[in-house]
Amino acid sequence: MNYGMILYVLGWIMNFEALFLLPSVVVAMIYREQAGFSIIITAILCLGMGLLIISRKPQKTQIYAREGFVIVAFSWIILSIFGALPFRISGVIPSMVDAVFEVASGFTTTGASILPNVEALPHCLLFLRSFTHWVGGMGVLVFVIAVLPLAGGSNMYLMKAESPGPSVKKLVPKVKRTALTLYVMYLLITLIEIIFLLAGRMPLFDALTLSFGTAGTGGFGVRNDSIASYTIYQQNVITIFMILFGVNFNVYYLIYRRKLKEIKNCSEVFAYLAIIAVAVILISVNIRDRYPGVGLAIKDAAFQVGSIITTTGYSTVDFNLWPAFSKTVLVLLMFIGACAGSTGGGIKVSRLIILCKTVTKELDYIVHPNGVKKIKMEGKQLEHSVLRSVNVFMIAYILVFVASVLLISLDNFDLTTNFTAVAATLNNIGPGLGRVGPASNFGCYSDFSKIILTFDMLAGRLELFPVLILLSWRTWKK
Amino acid sequence: MNYGMILYVLGWIMNFEALFLLPSVVVAMIYREQAGFSIIITAILCLGMGLLIISRKPQKTQIYAREGFVIVAFSWIILSIFGALPFRISGVIPSMVDAVFEVASGFTTTGASILPNVEALPHCLLFLRSFTHWVGGMGVLVFVIAVLPLAGGSNMYLMKAESPGPSVKKLVPKVKRTALTLYVMYLLITLIEIIFLLAGRMPLFDALTLSFGTAGTGGFGVRNDSIASYTIYQQNVITIFMILFGVNFNVYYLIYRRKLKEIKNCSEVFAYLAIIAVAVILISVNIRDRYPGVGLAIKDAAFQVGSIITTTGYSTVDFNLWPAFSKTVLVLLMFIGACAGSTGGGIKVSRLIILCKTVTKELDYIVHPNGVKKIKMEGKQLEHSVLRSVNVFMIAYILVFVASVLLISLDNFDLTTNFTAVAATLNNIGPGLGRVGPASNFGCYSDFSKIILTFDMLAGRLELFPVLILLSWRTWKK
Repeated sequence: MNYGMILYVLGWIMNFEALFLLPSVVVAMIYREQAGFSIIITAILCLGMGLLIISRKPQKTQIYAREGFVIVAFSWIILSIFGALPFRISGVIPSMVDAVFEVASGFTTTGASILPNVEALPHCLLFLRSFTHWVGGMGVLVFVIAVLPLAGGSNMYLMKAESPGPSVKKLVPKVKRTALTLYVMYLLITLIEIIFLLAGRMPLFDALTLSFGTAGTGGFGVRNDSIASYTIYQQNVITIFMILFGVNFNVYYLIYRRKLKEIKNCSEVFAYLAIIAVAVILISVNIRDRYPGVGLAIKDAAFQVGSIITTTGYSTVDFNLWPAFSKTVLVLLMFIGACAGSTGGGIKVSRLIILCKTVTKELDYIVHPNGVKKIKMEGKQLEHSVLRSVNVFMIAYILVFVASVLLISLDNFDLTTNFTAVAATLNNIGPGLGRVGPASNFGCYSDFSKIILTFDMLAGRLELFPVLILLSWRTWKK
Repeated sequence: MNYGMILYVLGWIMNFEALFLLPSVVVAMIYREQAGFSIIITAILCLGMGLLIISRKPQKTQIYAREGFVIVAFSWIILSIFGALPFRISGVIPSMVDAVFEVASGFTTTGASILPNVEALPHCLLFLRSFTHWVGGMGVLVFVIAVLPLAGGSNMYLMKAESPGPSVKKLVPKVKRTALTLYVMYLLITLIEIIFLLAGRMPLFDALTLSFGTAGTGGFGVRNDSIASYTIYQQNVITIFMILFGVNFNVYYLIYRRKLKEIKNCSEVFAYLAIIAVAVILISVNIRDRYPGVGLAIKDAAFQVGSIITTTGYSTVDFNLWPAFSKTVLVLLMFIGACAGSTGGGIKVSRLIILCKTVTKELDYIVHPNGVKKIKMEGKQLEHSVLRSVNVFMIAYILVFVASVLLISLDNFDLTTNFTAVAATLNNIGPGLGRVGPASNFGCYSDFSKIILTFDMLAGRLELFPVLILLSWRTWKK
């Protein structure tokens, strides 16, 4: 294990965190808010520690998969802990466990909150909260890779460990340029959303924060009723952009390079859009008698479906009050998640396609033992290693899920609450059902459960293995 | 597809069903119950159809895996439909959907009931209900194989399709003798339980029916409160025998052959017993303040844990009223299930061991890419085909589970009820939580949902693929 290099990259992460806090300081200055000082103190602390650590460059710079996983896991833990300091120091969130929960929820783009009244927060902290979504969505290390001078081979291990999906594609041959391209596209689409929201007369502060939340598929709002009190136009803009940010970014790259023919091969995206369409229709039919017109039912169905499948977690209605069938559809969408290579969480559509294909193949195998072909995906034969990693991911996912539900059940809430609380955090969504429904928050859980759920948010965002590696004794054995 | 041979074996299944109904006719004669006539009518119908079908022997007797799967699936469907006739004809269960649900629940050893008051049933039908557990537990085709003159190679496909667990072992080189050996051991252990219960002054009728339910890990009782009103001795006897029937029958065969050293290798059984021990301790601690003494808490914890992990489904207490942690432990046990090669259902301990080992191996692989060994189980290297089938089983299991929850949610019950209703039927347990808890029954569901849940019971007992094969269009394509 190359400890020197691990520490060195973590030092850069501290510097990055200091940089990342600056926009919120500007917001504090504009609104003349005292809480700004707590952000400045944190930024100075991060920068001081970061500069101290990077002052000594490691001699060996080569790292491998294990270092990649360890660096990514520790980076996200450090970001969450130091990011919590402004909330703790300013007294807005008196408990450190709560503050770390809130900020981890931000960076992992979960959007689960322990705050009952977000409207009481100073603007600078609301901005900070939403900005964590934007940075966490595309990835902190993807950003660091784009700017940090690292050895060529090392980059890919970091990128793989942080990026969602069963197989990570490089858009361009160089990892560094891929990272940069991703961030530029990400910034552009976010800007387009901000412009559309401003055109619909949304205040700039709301347009910025809500666009950050949409882009990262996060879900922190700036009003207590999430998105319910915005205009229908504004809600529909957010619906469309939530769905767009759940699409694999390769598609946007192909559009940018005008390789429109290759988009035909992106079967994951078509499956993703088909699932959304079917879910919207099913829910609209199921809830239509609660609305004066079918249009409003479709609007709310589409918003909630887009919000849950992309694991954003905004809401325009308390879907905890919807009929059981609609709620069950939403719970299923929680697990499906968005496309690989997007900012969304969950199991990912491409993994589900691969898993369904393995079942069909097995049935074919029983019927025609000699005539079975290999599984193909997007025109290419799937390698055995991809199949294995998808299977192992599912098993690890189930084990983490089950262990979490068991541990938080010690708080003695009902099964639906516990089950959806874990589903909402491990899939980085935000709201669940029951006591953690969209009209409630996670404040009801004990500190112990909050720590478990914070773990789930990080495990879900990093797709399990980076954090599981930290827990495996073999990682630390000499 | 060898349709002649499929029909021929199904003819034997009809004859078998006629034979199987006879003991209940005897019970009807002893208690002089009119309902006996409905059983006699059904038996004559089955025998007539069966003899007609087997009168013409097929020319080609060789069958392969696909015919094995199709035969097994159709056999169980036929058994359930014709087995339902006595209940329908006698008017005890007026609805045919309900009657098929009840009898499928019996044969699949689920024990989920739609009857609110079983004490109102005539003895002969109560006996029939429990006897379905005994026959279904070890397997109907295993019985047919033991007596039917089939071509040697064909037997194994039927045995594989019906027997639970990731890999089916032959105890002795001949499949026919293996089947016979299994049934003899099964009969013997059942007799020992009956003797123990009679020694505890349980009435003969109760001792017989409850032993059938224990042996098959079924769960139909003959009193409305299941096992709650029996003496502590009788409850403890049932606890022990439930756990014994959840053990892989290979272990009993090894004991019979005095190969005690080989038992050391049965790591699945040790894991199974360890899980039971841990679950009993956790629940006892969690519920101890509801009992006057710790002994009674342990007794109820052990009974419920033994009942749920072996997927029997008897209860001595309404565990729906237990604290959330205990309920969550029980829900986990529902999925774990008993050992492979036992009469119990669920995912099976051996599958879970294999799945956990794949995750550990993946973590090792990340840390030491060049030093990873193959997965071993019970001293032997696992073949790739076993690993694949375990993975595919899990995926198919999740897909069937999810689709079922979604479909029955149309009845608009809460998520806990729907989730545990599917868990209780797909794992062949019986009671769930909420509206389908041990103090309630499945009568609340619509006919549509009952058909889905009946499908789940059959799919669970036959470990998915035989029934999924029926639904795959490729099976029927020329």
